[in-house]
Amino acid sequence: MRIGELSKRTGVPVPTIKFYLREGLLPHGRLTSHNQAQYGEEHLHRIKLVRAMTEVGKLSVAAAREVLEAVDEPGNGVHQVLGVAQSAITPQVAPEDSEVWQRAEARVAELVRRRGWQVRPGIPAEQALVQLVVTFDELGQQDLLTLLDDYAQAAEQLAKSELAAIGRRDGVDAMVEGAVLGTVLGDALIGAMRRLAQSDASHRLFEGTPE
Amino acid sequence: MRIGELSKRTGVPVPTIKFYLREGLLPHGRLTSHNQAQYGEEHLHRIKLVRAMTEVGKLSVAAAREVLEAVDEPGNGVHQVLGVAQSAITPQVAPEDSEVWQRAEARVAELVRRRGWQVRPGIPAEQALVQLVVTFDELGQQDLLTLLDDYAQAAEQLAKSELAAIGRRDGVDAMVEGAVLGTVLGDALIGAMRRLAQSDASHRLFEGTPE
Repeated sequence: MRIGELSKRTGVPVPTIKFYLREGLLPHGRLTSHNQAQYGEEHLHRIKLVRAMTEVGKLSVAAAREVLEAVDEPGNGVHQVLGVAQSAITPQVAPEDSEVWQRAEARVAELVRRRGWQVRPGIPAEQALVQLVVTFDELGQQDLLTLLDDYAQAAEQLAKSELAAIGRRDGVDAMVEGAVLGTVLGDALIGAMRRLAQSDASHRLFEGTPE
Repeated sequence: MRIGELSKRTGVPVPTIKFYLREGLLPHGRLTSHNQAQYGEEHLHRIKLVRAMTEVGKLSVAAAREVLEAVDEPGNGVHQVLGVAQSAITPQVAPEDSEVWQRAEARVAELVRRRGWQVRPGIPAEQALVQLVVTFDELGQQDLLTLLDDYAQAAEQLAKSELAAIGRRDGVDAMVEGAVLGTVLGDALIGAMRRLAQSDASHRLFEGTPE
């Protein structure tokens, strides 16, 4: 199909598709004359994937390109691409040289050990977690930190179901795409669910009571 | 204390504190002369709260101000402030006029009904969830959508523990602050936990297997 039909079928304007081509988010079509190219179903799917990552998952163009390069790299398996996708969405946190930071680091390391999670020490997610523990601690919210194990338990169950579903797919390409989408969109998914559930729980607990 | 000590004790530079004052994120101190003000422990705590919301929770200054105004409004209870905090962190999604959208809307409404969640229909989180279902659907990831109930279950357990912990606090102010922090930082918390748990699950499932 031509670029116009690609635009019509995806709902993405032609200038945006040209931007994706320029930025390396979308592979070029097959040239049929000096100024015309043909695109296939794989381009259609890739455009939807780029939209999902940038519009719904809020990834920057640079982060989306990094993830797609890992997806396209022959020989990359699920575990490698998952690592790249995780890095792309996890803000880098620089460790602080303070006592409260060290205490939080020890607490997170102990949590990881207790759950038996086999993760490379110091991965971005672990540092992000340490920073959150420090933040709750410094704001005097120690009671909320007692919920860390509930969060870990919930995360572990979700990760197991998600990776198991991905592992049931046919072929590495489909698994890799599932890992990317689960990572990039999964945060938004659990976030939206939490807000609905919080809204219900707070309604039950606090609504109608005199303040 | 003077602004210099406020800066030293929070680690936030004086120009940033002045910015918070100008932007209405921090109440003004008590004037002791025409160009000097005194600040108390409540200012110290408020600066840490602003840092937590903007630096760790990645709220915009406008969103943080909106939440703090709701926190400061006398008579606002936990449920009201939670709603404002949720709106501040949930991207507004415009419903699309398409069949796939309507199908997703019905699916989410049915999920909410099945779980017995009492939420105002059409709240931002519900629309965000519909958009995610549409996105997974359009990308042919129907197998991941079978996990929606797992996500709902996990979210419900977390919301119950979180709101219960907040409800055990002394006084509405402490409850309100807990609701804000749980909402604004809770996404980052479950996100970091998911990445650690995913990394472990994918290591166990995929690592070492030939691709």
